[in-house]
Order: sequence, then structure tokens, then C-alpha cells
Amino acid sequence: MRTIDWVDGAIELVDQTLLPDECVVLRIETVDALIDAIRRLAVRGAPALGVAGAMGVALAAATLDDPAEAIARLRAARPTAVNLAWGVDQAAACLPDADAALERALAIRDDDIAACRSMGEYGADLLADLAPAPARVMTVCNTGGLAAVERGTALGVVQTLHERGALAEALALETRPLLQGARLTTWELARMGAPHRLVVDSAGPYLLATGHADAVLIGADRIAANGDTANKIGSYALALGAARAGVPFVVVAPETTVDMTTPTGAHIEIEDRGPSEVLTVKGVRVAPKGTHTVNPAFDVTPHELITAIVTDRRVVRLAQGETLSSVPQGARR
Amino acid sequence: MRTIDWVDGAIELVDQTLLPDECVVLRIETVDALIDAIRRLAVRGAPALGVAGAMGVALAAATLDDPAEAIARLRAARPTAVNLAWGVDQAAACLPDADAALERALAIRDDDIAACRSMGEYGADLLADLAPAPARVMTVCNTGGLAAVERGTALGVVQTLHERGALAEALALETRPLLQGARLTTWELARMGAPHRLVVDSAGPYLLATGHADAVLIGADRIAANGDTANKIGSYALALGAARAGVPFVVVAPETTVDMTTPTGAHIEIEDRGPSEVLTVKGVRVAPKGTHTVNPAFDVTPHELITAIVTDRRVVRLAQGETLSSVPQGARR
Repeated sequence: MRTIDWVDGAIELVDQTLLPDECVVLRIETVDALIDAIRRLAVRGAPALGVAGAMGVALAAATLDDPAEAIARLRAARPTAVNLAWGVDQAAACLPDADAALERALAIRDDDIAACRSMGEYGADLLADLAPAPARVMTVCNTGGLAAVERGTALGVVQTLHERGALAEALALETRPLLQGARLTTWELARMGAPHRLVVDSAGPYLLATGHADAVLIGADRIAANGDTANKIGSYALALGAARAGVPFVVVAPETTVDMTTPTGAHIEIEDRGPSEVLTVKGVRVAPKGTHTVNPAFDVTPHELITAIVTDRRVVRLAQGETLSSVPQGARR
Repeated sequence: MRTIDWVDGAIELVDQTLLPDECVVLRIETVDALIDAIRRLAVRGAPALGVAGAMGVALAAATLDDPAEAIARLRAARPTAVNLAWGVDQAAACLPDADAALERALAIRDDDIAACRSMGEYGADLLADLAPAPARVMTVCNTGGLAAVERGTALGVVQTLHERGALAEALALETRPLLQGARLTTWELARMGAPHRLVVDSAGPYLLATGHADAVLIGADRIAANGDTANKIGSYALALGAARAGVPFVVVAPETTVDMTTPTGAHIEIEDRGPSEVLTVKGVRVAPKGTHTVNPAFDVTPHELITAIVTDRRVVRLAQGETLSSVPQGARR
């Protein structure tokens, strides 16, 4: 199953607002329907939104006489999602050739699939080296196919391990405040038939201390030139727990996430997402009205706590002194 | 306000199931009503349950011709709450002298109040030494008056700091799975007029790394002879974060929590509370039905990560080489 795809002249995507209770594939035949799906988070995740943007342009070109206005609205459907605007721009550059725009959208889709598959292979090979087989791995947030097209980043490595018969268990952190681990990662793991258990975030470091996992695998939102990694809040706590327990801590992300223009993690700005998602869970209030919060969406794990970085084109073993500058990019697997 | 008290011949207690939305004081005039309140967690927390048990015996003696059967049911209302049975036994030993049973119950109440007040003084003095004034402190779970009678342990220190004008801000961790921090600690902090913000548990270590707090204060469920401390899950992750950030990490608990017959934390058994509280939040399901979990209710923080232990009778500065054996108990403050 693909999270998003082009099928018989329209976009089909999994409605993630209904997961994990129901898995409904929406057929999107108009740009307005796509904008609605994006706005209500039926489709989410940076790579998936890039594909959605590009396919939306193809849809606009195929269905509208003058698609420019619809494309502009699509591009602005989620203003902070840079991948959406990027995907729109990539396909729009091919217009007025509608076939070329669709070609470009499909190429973006295929490139994501290939990158994730390659990360899975590189990552599973690394795990075979770093951890016993079959391995027990811990992960946070949702870094699976639901954030991309077909396979994911960190969870893509878990999937490849499982397909190789090298996965003993995945421990998924629930990932407050938005519970991507509880809602989405568990659903993906169940779907791939991988043994897994769910834990509250604060238990992660302690379960590492008590020998419950052989490796930690996380995704990344941005990787600085020195290897410092911004990722979902909670990643840093896991890195501390892994370092003290002597458990390998591995970052998995495509080359596009490596930002050599950002020298260190100190230069990465961390967004505070405000109180509402802390004060409520699935719409239910859990704290007194008006309570102030600190709600950093991401944290930065310093490079010295990271064992290795896996991309679609290389493995950089920071713990062995390798750096993003010293290890050249290679072929995709 | 007291969480539980004896007023004009009956028990009055704050119904914690309604917090933080409403603060309702229940007047309990029969043993059956008390058993119901205990069972549905209207009253909770080890010290508060001890007082409830003892006061329940006084109530039984005052209202029933033959109180033995009602006392036995009260004692078993929450089988795993040792303090409840302890409180029942303390007061029941005074029977058939009903006045003596009530005297004993009131003495248990007063002793808890005095112990918590003393911890507050010892703890606030220690913080004055370890942290800048006014101090920004981080805490987890609910260790306030709601778990005791009038003031709490770690949150009691926060309260004393606030009363001294030495508190800049309290950062409360929400404390999944049961959200005692979000529901109860924020409510207590608001009630005492102390500046505070709520954070998800996984953000705690990162906020320490980024200089958001000057000290961490936690309670304890059991302290082993070497200082290893069992406390609410998440305490260990905070200890790791505090150690790396060079922030003092202080345990606050009454002498009764120190268990010199348990040599180290390795001898403390950690209860797994099963899947339902992980899979749901306030009755709302957040993960696929049937998902397996690991749900340790507590973790163990090794003594070398603890700066000091504060009790009602002493301060033991582990970071300076002091031990529970080397520092004698002193007078209450």
C-alpha cells in the first residue's frame, strides 16, 4: 500500500485522520478536495506532502482550463510545509505541458520510494553489525510509510530488518503531544506483522537502562554539518539513555535532510507549538484551562551522542570519528 | 485547605476525580461512603490513604454498634495500598475505645503535616545553597498536598520556596500515563499562586540541556540503603538530563520512605501496570485495540545521579560523599 499515489487519473491517499481505527483510501479528483485533505491532515509528513503538491498540479492541469489560481491555493494550503510548496513548484515548472507535470510528480514519488528503500538496506546492514540478530529496536514518532509514500526512514529500517527476519521486537514511544507513535507507528508495525510494544515516552531511557532494546533508531528533521540532529522532542532523552546504557543510537534520514550550511545544532531554531496540543489529548482536556506551557516540537541531539547517521547514499559512523564531510555519498542500494 | 480532615464528627475530603475542573469537598459520614470514595480514587496518595484508613476506623466506631465487619471491608478497599491497611490497623488497635481511635487518626494526620512542613524547610534551605534565587525548578508527578494532608514532599519544597519569595517558576511534567502532573500539580501550583508551566515528559531532559531550570525536585516511592531511588517513571530520564546539564537533582521524601533493608535499587521490584492506561487517555483510545505495552509505573535512579536526599529529619548530600548511613537523623524543622 502507498500512502499517496496516482491511480487512473486521480490521487488516492490514506485518510490519516481515521487511523488507527479505520484505514480508508480517499480518491481525490479535484484540487479543492486535495486542499481539503491537506488542511485537515488527512495527508501529512514532509515527503508525502511534496508528492501531494506535485500530483495536485498534475490534477489541476488535467481538470481545469486555467489551473493557475487553483495551484496557488494548493501551494498555500499549509504555509509552513516547505515540501508542499517545493512539490507544487517542481511540477508547475513543467506547465503548460500537463503530461510533463504528471511525469515530474511520478518521478518525485518514485525517488522517495527509492530513497527509503535504500535507507532500509544501509540501515539494516549497519544494525547487523552493531546489534545482535534478531534485534530489539526502540523508536520515536512516526517515521514510516505514512510520512512518505511507501516505506519510511527509521521505521523503514525496522521494516527491512523485519523482512530479513532480523527483528525481534520494536518498542514504539507514544510521542506526546501528538501521539504519532501511539496512533500511526503501532498501526504500521501491526500492518507489517512486526512484533511490537507501545511505551510512554518517559519510560524510554529507563527501558534502555534495563536492557530492553539493542538499538535506538530515529528520523531527523535537520542534520547540521557537524552531525547534531534536530528531531521530534524526546529524541535527546533517548540519546542520553542510549549513551549511558551503551546502546547504539542511529539517525536515519535522506541526504536532503543534511544541511551543510548549518554548522551546528546551536544554529537550529526550535519551534514552540503553543499550549493547545499539551492541554488536550484527542480533543479531551487534561489540564486546567489557561495553563501555560513550554512545547518545543523538536530537540537537538549533539553529535557525540550519535553512533551513526544513515542516509540513502551512505553510512557515517560518528562514533568511529567519521564525519559528514569525510564520508562521500555513494550509490543508492 | 486539607486534602482530608476530620470535621464535626465526619471525614471531609477533596474529590480528586473532579480535579482540575471542579474542587468539591465531600462530607463522608459512613464507612460505606468512604470505601466508595477510596475505590473510585476520590482520595489517593499513600499518606492521604493512611489518614483515610485511620479516620475510617474512628467513623466506624462512632456510627456502628459492631464495627469489625465494616473495618475489615475498609482495610481491603484497595488491597495494594499498604498505607491504607497500616492506617486502619493503627486506629483499630485502640478499639473498643472510640475516642482513642480518633485521637490516633488525628495524630497520624498531624504527623504527616509536620513531616511535610519540615521537608519544605530543609529542602528550601538546600535549594538556597544549590541554586540561584529565585529558582526555576522542574518536577514530575504529583507530590503535593493532594497526595498527603496539607503540604507535599517535592511540591512541598516548591511551596516553601514560593512562600519565601524564592521561586521563579515551576516546570511541571505532565506524567503520562496517568497525567498526575497535568491534572493535579498544575492545579495545586495555580492554587498557591506559584508561576508555572506544563511540559510533556519527553521535553524535560531537553529543557534542562537548554537552561530552563536550576534544579529538579522529585518525590520517592522507596529509597534503598545506598541512595538508589524508586520514583514515578520519568524520574531517571530527568536525572540523566540534570547530570549532563550540571543541574542539581534532589529527592524529597519522609524518613519512612528510606528502606535500609533494601541494599540497592537492583533489589526494588518495578510494577508493570498493564496496557489500558497507555492505550487510553481519560477514557479516549489513542492506540490500536489490543496493542501490547511495556508500562513500568516506576523507575530507579542510581544514587550517583542524585545530588541530595531531603527528608523530614536531615539532608544527605550524596554528591559530597555523604550517605544515608553516615548522616544521622536530626530534629524536625
